[in-house]
Amino acid sequence: MAERLVYINGDYYPEAEAKISVFDSAVMLGDCVTESTRTFNHVPFRLRDHIERLYKSMKVCRFDCGLSPDEMECLTLEVIERNLPAYEGMDLWIVHNISRGAYPPTGDQSTKRTPTIIIHTAPMDLRYWAPFYVIGCHAVTPPSRMVPAQSLDAKIKNRSRMAYTLAELECKLVDPMAQGILLDLDGCLTENKGGNFFLVQEGVLKTPRTLNALNGITRQTTLEIARNLGIPTLETDLQPYDVYTADEAFFTSTPYCIMPATRFNGLPVGEGVVGPVTRRLLQGWSDLVGLDIVQQALQQLPADQREELLSCAP
Amino acid sequence: MAERLVYINGDYYPEAEAKISVFDSAVMLGDCVTESTRTFNHVPFRLRDHIERLYKSMKVCRFDCGLSPDEMECLTLEVIERNLPAYEGMDLWIVHNISRGAYPPTGDQSTKRTPTIIIHTAPMDLRYWAPFYVIGCHAVTPPSRMVPAQSLDAKIKNRSRMAYTLAELECKLVDPMAQGILLDLDGCLTENKGGNFFLVQEGVLKTPRTLNALNGITRQTTLEIARNLGIPTLETDLQPYDVYTADEAFFTSTPYCIMPATRFNGLPVGEGVVGPVTRRLLQGWSDLVGLDIVQQALQQLPADQREELLSCAP
Amino acid sequence: MAERLVYINGDYYPEAEAKISVFDSAVMLGDCVTESTRTFNHVPFRLRDHIERLYKSMKVCRFDCGLSPDEMECLTLEVIERNLPAYEGMDLWIVHNISRGAYPPTGDQSTKRTPTIIIHTAPMDLRYWAPFYVIGCHAVTPPSRMVPAQSLDAKIKNRSRMAYTLAELECKLVDPMAQGILLDLDGCLTENKGGNFFLVQEGVLKTPRTLNALNGITRQTTLEIARNLGIPTLETDLQPYDVYTADEAFFTSTPYCIMPATRFNGLPVGEGVVGPVTRRLLQGWSDLVGLDIVQQALQQLPADQREELLSCAP
Amino acid sequence: MAERLVYINGDYYPEAEAKISVFDSAVMLGDCVTESTRTFNHVPFRLRDHIERLYKSMKVCRFDCGLSPDEMECLTLEVIERNLPAYEGMDLWIVHNISRGAYPPTGDQSTKRTPTIIIHTAPMDLRYWAPFYVIGCHAVTPPSRMVPAQSLDAKIKNRSRMAYTLAELECKLVDPMAQGILLDLDGCLTENKGGNFFLVQEGVLKTPRTLNALNGITRQTTLEIARNLGIPTLETDLQPYDVYTADEAFFTSTPYCIMPATRFNGLPVGEGVVGPVTRRLLQGWSDLVGLDIVQQALQQLPADQREELLSCAP
Amino acid sequence: MAERLVYINGDYYPEAEAKISVFDSAVMLGDCVTESTRTFNHVPFRLRDHIERLYKSMKVCRFDCGLSPDEMECLTLEVIERNLPAYEGMDLWIVHNISRGAYPPTGDQSTKRTPTIIIHTAPMDLRYWAPFYVIGCHAVTPPSRMVPAQSLDAKIKNRSRMAYTLAELECKLVDPMAQGILLDLDGCLTENKGGNFFLVQEGVLKTPRTLNALNGITRQTTLEIARNLGIPTLETDLQPYDVYTADEAFFTSTPYCIMPATRFNGLPVGEGVVGPVTRRLLQGWSDLVGLDIVQQALQQLPADQREELLSCAP
Amino acid sequence: MAERLVYINGDYYPEAEAKISVFDSAVMLGDCVTESTRTFNHVPFRLRDHIERLYKSMKVCRFDCGLSPDEMECLTLEVIERNLPAYEGMDLWIVHNISRGAYPPTGDQSTKRTPTIIIHTAPMDLRYWAPFYVIGCHAVTPPSRMVPAQSLDAKIKNRSRMAYTLAELECKLVDPMAQGILLDLDGCLTENKGGNFFLVQEGVLKTPRTLNALNGITRQTTLEIARNLGIPTLETDLQPYDVYTADEAFFTSTPYCIMPATRFNGLPVGEGVVGPVTRRLLQGWSDLVGLDIVQQALQQLPADQREELLSCAP
Repeated sequence: MAERLVYINGDYYPEAEAKISVFDSAVMLGDCVTESTRTFNHVPFRLRDHIERLYKSMKVCRFDCGLSPDEMECLTLEVIERNLPAYEGMDLWIVHNISRGAYPPTGDQSTKRTPTIIIHTAPMDLRYWAPFYVIGCHAVTPPSRMVPAQSLDAKIKNRSRMAYTLAELECKLVDPMAQGILLDLDGCLTENKGGNFFLVQEGVLKTPRTLNALNGITRQTTLEIARNLGIPTLETDLQPYDVYTADEAFFTSTPYCIMPATRFNGLPVGEGVVGPVTRRLLQGWSDLVGLDIVQQALQQLPADQREELLSCAP
Repeated sequence: MAERLVYINGDYYPEAEAKISVFDSAVMLGDCVTESTRTFNHVPFRLRDHIERLYKSMKVCRFDCGLSPDEMECLTLEVIERNLPAYEGMDLWIVHNISRGAYPPTGDQSTKRTPTIIIHTAPMDLRYWAPFYVIGCHAVTPPSRMVPAQSLDAKIKNRSRMAYTLAELECKLVDPMAQGILLDLDGCLTENKGGNFFLVQEGVLKTPRTLNALNGITRQTTLEIARNLGIPTLETDLQPYDVYTADEAFFTSTPYCIMPATRFNGLPVGEGVVGPVTRRLLQGWSDLVGLDIVQQALQQLPADQREELLSCAP
Repeated sequence: MAERLVYINGDYYPEAEAKISVFDSAVMLGDCVTESTRTFNHVPFRLRDHIERLYKSMKVCRFDCGLSPDEMECLTLEVIERNLPAYEGMDLWIVHNISRGAYPPTGDQSTKRTPTIIIHTAPMDLRYWAPFYVIGCHAVTPPSRMVPAQSLDAKIKNRSRMAYTLAELECKLVDPMAQGILLDLDGCLTENKGGNFFLVQEGVLKTPRTLNALNGITRQTTLEIARNLGIPTLETDLQPYDVYTADEAFFTSTPYCIMPATRFNGLPVGEGVVGPVTRRLLQGWSDLVGLDIVQQALQQLPADQREELLSCAP
Repeated sequence: MAERLVYINGDYYPEAEAKISVFDSAVMLGDCVTESTRTFNHVPFRLRDHIERLYKSMKVCRFDCGLSPDEMECLTLEVIERNLPAYEGMDLWIVHNISRGAYPPTGDQSTKRTPTIIIHTAPMDLRYWAPFYVIGCHAVTPPSRMVPAQSLDAKIKNRSRMAYTLAELECKLVDPMAQGILLDLDGCLTENKGGNFFLVQEGVLKTPRTLNALNGITRQTTLEIARNLGIPTLETDLQPYDVYTADEAFFTSTPYCIMPATRFNGLPVGEGVVGPVTRRLLQGWSDLVGLDIVQQALQQLPADQREELLSCAP
Repeated sequence: MAERLVYINGDYYPEAEAKISVFDSAVMLGDCVTESTRTFNHVPFRLRDHIERLYKSMKVCRFDCGLSPDEMECLTLEVIERNLPAYEGMDLWIVHNISRGAYPPTGDQSTKRTPTIIIHTAPMDLRYWAPFYVIGCHAVTPPSRMVPAQSLDAKIKNRSRMAYTLAELECKLVDPMAQGILLDLDGCLTENKGGNFFLVQEGVLKTPRTLNALNGITRQTTLEIARNLGIPTLETDLQPYDVYTADEAFFTSTPYCIMPATRFNGLPVGEGVVGPVTRRLLQGWSDLVGLDIVQQALQQLPADQREELLSCAP
Repeated sequence: MAERLVYINGDYYPEAEAKISVFDSAVMLGDCVTESTRTFNHVPFRLRDHIERLYKSMKVCRFDCGLSPDEMECLTLEVIERNLPAYEGMDLWIVHNISRGAYPPTGDQSTKRTPTIIIHTAPMDLRYWAPFYVIGCHAVTPPSRMVPAQSLDAKIKNRSRMAYTLAELECKLVDPMAQGILLDLDGCLTENKGGNFFLVQEGVLKTPRTLNALNGITRQTTLEIARNLGIPTLETDLQPYDVYTADEAFFTSTPYCIMPATRFNGLPVGEGVVGPVTRRLLQGWSDLVGLDIVQQALQQLPADQREELLSCAP
């Protein structure tokens, strides 16, 4: 198969040579905004929406990458084009990372710097998440709390993510396969390191407001699918009690679209199986993107694991 | 002059070639701990203390870099040794950056990864701060608030620092030369992107507790110097009112040791000049490290700028 | 022109003689409720609504001014009537200030006191704000936080406003012409010293809830105008990120109705110009009140300033 | 007896004519700082400390009254001098109120304004508090919470005091003679509208830190007296539980120095009587100021009330 | 009349003998969930809803009582059946208390324990509340704050209720007949020890969200009745200001359905009388349950008290 | 062996018959205060201190049990005396539970009720904790937060402990043998369901302040022992970072005195073994109480378990 190429500030590099200076502010300060888009059948999904959010992030971070959104879109399509030969039979991620550029070792922020633009692709490897489509994952709340928006707003999609990593590791103490769901300072549900959270209560699809969470494009799409399917939706403050007593729950994120959660802090969510509203929304996603997202993931598993999984499904 | 060399996982690279993969978790997640040590007359200052704090940071972040603290100390001394030829007549920074290693694109944190160990040096360029020794800097509180410790504890010296960067840029709206001092969620003083804060009230040297701030080694050293000089010290909660009505104020950080602050949010601190307790502490620092830290900085300025500065000093 | 007269507890005084005792609780305790109403073409706008809110403020403050709302309305109309000769060709403010009366120097609050009722008028001098209709103002968030409702509810329109004054002065450090917009303790937008705040995101007009803000009559009127124009509205929690990424933003207050904000903390709001939704709402206001509110303000400027302003408008 | 004279911006007025414009920012914005000093035997107590705090308040409020502290001290002594004939046999308050001056009706804060300096005196009428020396007062916590320092710092002694007034009125619902003691947002004790709070636990004199309270001069003096008497002191966070279980409690404020509190929220404090540490401190105060402060107050009561009071004392 | 019988873990006991071990975790830890249902004309009201909430409470508390919800419903009906002879002419409460069982004196929570199931009935004695239907009650906010959901979620209907009891006693200091309404940590209205709170503002029926309050079945029913009557409803954050300025207010709870509140912290709510919306909702309740709930309560009063009450009603 | 007898309101009952009414407010409201004292060699330890705290709890809860502290002490000694025959060769707990008495089903709190006084004993069974003396326990922070003092002060030793139970069960998800340590709303360490927490940092013994924790008598005693041994002590705010980087940690509580904690949230504390300061304090405890508290616990284990444990100890 063809080699994957990473775009860095005007040039393309094979992955093994795709590097940035250790003095880049991405490394020195986590001062880097980002987007992750995926393709379905090699068509990027809502790429323009991702690019627009990327520019919002840059604006709030007070830097300009030197390209217009249109230029960024063209460039991104070129990166995909160049990499497609490496993705026969497999969808891909497209990841943008844009840092403020070289790090000023003194406190002097006034030096003009050239931002670092990195665009890479990656195989849409779904094997980690695939079993969750069938049996659901285990959602766990860590003791650490979400960074509040008045400190760093999660709506800025950024790479200063140590807080998420540490919280996720706390969750792994409960279950090595746990998927974290952070609480805010008031104890309300927010998001996790890469996804939003939803639950179903008496037929209504509910998800936290975005006061302390990214307004995920997958989140928005899921709300739209639900509305199209006639499922009532509500963006509101949710608490652990709501998950314990919900009928269904799931995460949303770019790679897996919807990841059912059938346990929460050690207790079953609803009946402890992937529920009917979640199934309808998964189907809605498959219809929207033109491929069966569950089958795509399951096909990546070895045949015996897939069969075992399906046999133990309810 | 000789070329500077950067240590990365066992090898030495000239600075221009010192790079890490764009897939490193330092880049992808800001998942990187750090220390910055400096030399005085080419002797590293409290290197062992920095290394011990580095290992505390790694422990709390739940990863192991594969070297013992002793090995890290030897390695660091070797990095300095190799770089000293490049620092004739100039002191240097020694910076450790250790990330968790390659980034797992799925949520799977269980993969064993090799941490990335980077040790680089940098010239102790003090020109940005040098004028502040004479006329003091302008400390400014931004509207954004410090990340609270229950989200990400500042005592973990880490590279997920976008919050500090954005807050600092807010301060620059008030004054392009402003030095930020963040407030915590209760409105108490914490620290800034690289330093602790002190003030003097009626002869007592006060500094915020470390509930939402790094326990800086320069902070500790300054407290020790004060105690040796018979200056009473107090670690306590401080508020903007305390700075407005203080007699003196300053920041502490590795490169500059003490940076006097003579204005606060547009108002003079005390008489608006570098005060006597600050001067005694600066002298105490010079005595401790065996060189005149103020002169070292001023000597880096062009002669005319230096003279102008000294002529306008009170 | 005729002299303006101030009503104080039953008598009328020329402005220069309109005084209250230095022992009044307005002076000694800021213990005073207030309303500011304006006229359009000499017709007071929603005077009854203002009077009703004034009585709500008095009730919550636990004192009774001795007049019924009807009597207060009649009296107010009389004050206007008496002052109209002084306002040829100019609209006017009508300001009510009602304090609890004389201040008891001991802690004894049980003494029966006679409230001090002051009603004055003032010329509707719009020169300060006029340029903002054309080029927009600069909205800035100060580091100080809004007084929370459980300490003193902003819905009580009161004269204990030092917190607003100090916050406004903090904003002026960023820009001498800045218009402050305070954040609450959670970092959400509230109001400023005399106005509410709105923004437009993808065609929806949004404004903070009134948990920590006055429910302004201009705010209510603007929401009504929007609904009449078919513009969707939403009262919700808003954060700085929302302003940075909004298409348009503005303040509302009695004198200027709508004051466009085209910059926020140093960054342009949307395109950095007065936007189309704001223009429609300004037009809606003009239609409602029967005069062109923008022209009224601009006409107060010297001709050369007005022309320069209009020439530099987009 | 001679007439009392009020100083206002350079002139002296009989009390009944001591007035300020209704357009002053003291009236319009509560934008006024203040001090209250008292005399003992016609000698002002720590006048210089009060004046220094007044200048701190002005500084933090960002205005300058046009007089130096020395000039203010001289002026104050002159005001006392002129008024002494009116205070035969009675001590007096000296009250400074300094506002920013005329109120700018538009948002324009840049206009240069002349501050309003008011200095008045008042008889040290202690009749309201006198019984509390004998039987103690009833301290009550209201449901409203102290304004937090990040909104308006209580260490700025200011006249925007509506929050205190409303909280005090809530306390009067429990007991018309109740003396309020406000809690901060975390539920810790702060201060009341004019005084600090102390309690005695197992021989240690404790008082809240000044994070959300004025650092009263009477508070400081009481701590000094205690230290001179060998009573251990502690400034720390205190909660209602601490008062319920304390041995003794009292308020401190300029007029009464120490006001014993023998009930708290309906329950007795300790034995419900004025306790021995409080008595020692009262004696210490009398010794310091050269008159028996309790007797001075009791002598102001009608003889029959005084006797009844003393007879019912324990 | 027949004797009342209490069900405890499989057996029936006369009330005087209905006891549980002092080692039960209900006694030792307040570790007990609960429901209170009432009958109207001996028909239990929404019993199934109560049982379902009971099972939600048990789930969140992580224990299983050993019976299915269906079995619990049958058992409950049997308890009612057995007790009905004791309730001629009077409705009854049905109270479920289910504790985790015996208390493990060491920290060892892993021991398997048999939950304690208690079902008792009680006469629907409405005499305490009856006058409030006519003249309304006095709602009072205590200084203590509601336990936040991240500490113990009020949506778990539980018997660890000391916080409510102490807050209620604080309210009784204001008025021995006061009905408490607790504020949350942000100063918003929540609930009281056994009921939810509603108010009417300009024709809209509003009640706090359930972030810090039980989602009462009476609350839900009242909202349904309102919607059926065409009264607009809103679940939102409410503050004391909203009650002070409301037109009407009331509590809802199982025994009394709706209890009008005509005073709030010493001030009248609206006109200080039971208002028209409250009356319509009371009528709606009577219609729904097939008996006049107000008359039922008033009939329990002695005739003279009832007459006096009705004569003093507006 | 003799039968144990429980005292309930004047009578003695064998344990199996020691019951209280299901209508008691301990059961219905968790409205019950408590103390747990233990004996060493059959001598009760600081019984008077426990009784005094019990009376403080009752006072703050606003009820009176009808006995004086002296009477309660005599009664307690009598309960011990009567039960000693049942404790040959074993120490015992003495537990006081005092509830407000019968529960008023209506909101009427004014009814005079007779408190329920229960005093029971229990064998000092230390087998659950014994291994922790040798290998240390695993301290874990749950996601739920401590009830804040302004909701219910932990210094009131009470039986409304569901919040502690649920938090403890969350910790057991991490490790079935975990010992919880709750964080307060700011993320600082507090206490757990029955004990205080200490850590050792560079030779200093630190423990959280009691703002959100019981001031345990074992806590006080441990501080006293430390001071007597010349170990510096500090009561201050502590955070998870402090435990991760501490040298040693332990819990204190009545039954086990000191329980070493050698792991914290999955990571070793210090070297992961019981440290030298902890050992000195354990020895200090043994010296104080006149028996080897570690041996006492280990002797309760089966010989083979004890040997295995000691062999695996470091």
